[in-house]
Amino acid sequence: MYDLEFIKSVLKNKLPHRRYNHSLGVCESAIWLAKKHDACQNKAELAGLLHDYAKYLNSYEARKYIKEFQIQIDEVIDLNIDLAHGLIAAELIKFEFEIEDEEILNAVRYHTTGRENMTNLEKIIYLADYIEPNRRFPVVDKIRDIAKHDLNKAVLMALDNSIKHVISKGLLIHHNSIFARNSLIMEMASAQSPIEV
Amino acid sequence: MYDLEFIKSVLKNKLPHRRYNHSLGVCESAIWLAKKHDACQNKAELAGLLHDYAKYLNSYEARKYIKEFQIQIDEVIDLNIDLAHGLIAAELIKFEFEIEDEEILNAVRYHTTGRENMTNLEKIIYLADYIEPNRRFPVVDKIRDIAKHDLNKAVLMALDNSIKHVISKGLLIHHNSIFARNSLIMEMASAQSPIEV
Repeated sequence: MYDLEFIKSVLKNKLPHRRYNHSLGVCESAIWLAKKHDACQNKAELAGLLHDYAKYLNSYEARKYIKEFQIQIDEVIDLNIDLAHGLIAAELIKFEFEIEDEEILNAVRYHTTGRENMTNLEKIIYLADYIEPNRRFPVVDKIRDIAKHDLNKAVLMALDNSIKHVISKGLLIHHNSIFARNSLIMEMASAQSPIEV
Repeated sequence: MYDLEFIKSVLKNKLPHRRYNHSLGVCESAIWLAKKHDACQNKAELAGLLHDYAKYLNSYEARKYIKEFQIQIDEVIDLNIDLAHGLIAAELIKFEFEIEDEEILNAVRYHTTGRENMTNLEKIIYLADYIEPNRRFPVVDKIRDIAKHDLNKAVLMALDNSIKHVISKGLLIHHNSIFARNSLIMEMASAQSPIEV
């Protein structure tokens, strides 16, 4: 068992007040989603709480950790180093809190872009980050509503919105978001009409 | 020199009337764009005319040619075989009209999805397909207007619109469109502020 109170106190010191509250919100939504969609609530709680652990590194610190932990980054991440904060957070929480569970670590790693063939926990953390109670934007209530009964559909809506937002800002799209979306659509299609044997 | 009248007559027999007119439209816009943006007008004419040469194959024929020409396709194309029509067209026009120019063939190959590091001619055919005179949809006039003086910006707008359209339809996004968009944004950024030596 991890000492959640200790982890929260470290996190509170590390993040600005607003981002700490966001982390508590993601934690709350992640537990709620885990209950609804058959995932481990303890893992959801921990991953939700710690997903933004490396969010406030400056670019120098981020690159230092990328080198130190030998994290592989591609050109898009290199040009937008903030996209690495999940990858770095996973290494930091492994090192600092001895969290070795790969399911938790991957949920933290890929919470920003998503990736192909996401696990249930990865979907939950990606979605919780998008719909936690402090989030206010058009369609968030609709996504929250769908998230009650259809995790895949809600994650797809979050991915769609997020990709459209990146387009509207003229920013680079990370290919992992496209692979996440494509594999989710294929998963949903095969669940609707399973391949006949 | 290719016998354009012969090619047109073959094309006319092969495509439905509306698609043949679209091909003439793309040809016209491609020549117009080539004039404005320093590309070979003859190559633009031929690639524009023939870009949809394989558009009306049924799925059985498409898969037959993919096998025959040993065309590599990925999972997204396999699930949406219409996305292969540019790849097949390039092989067919090489075989039937002895068009060996790789610049023309690649412009035909990648006119549907785009791809990373597109050549000028590839951009021109992708864009001409989007803005040819028969196209009617919101913002097409705006893109035509921008295309007069800024090829990259117009291609980016076409890619953005096209990706948003695919999202709105709930369809798979081909990763080449994302790689095309990302590399275009990087090209535009480095043209605005070239790296200092």
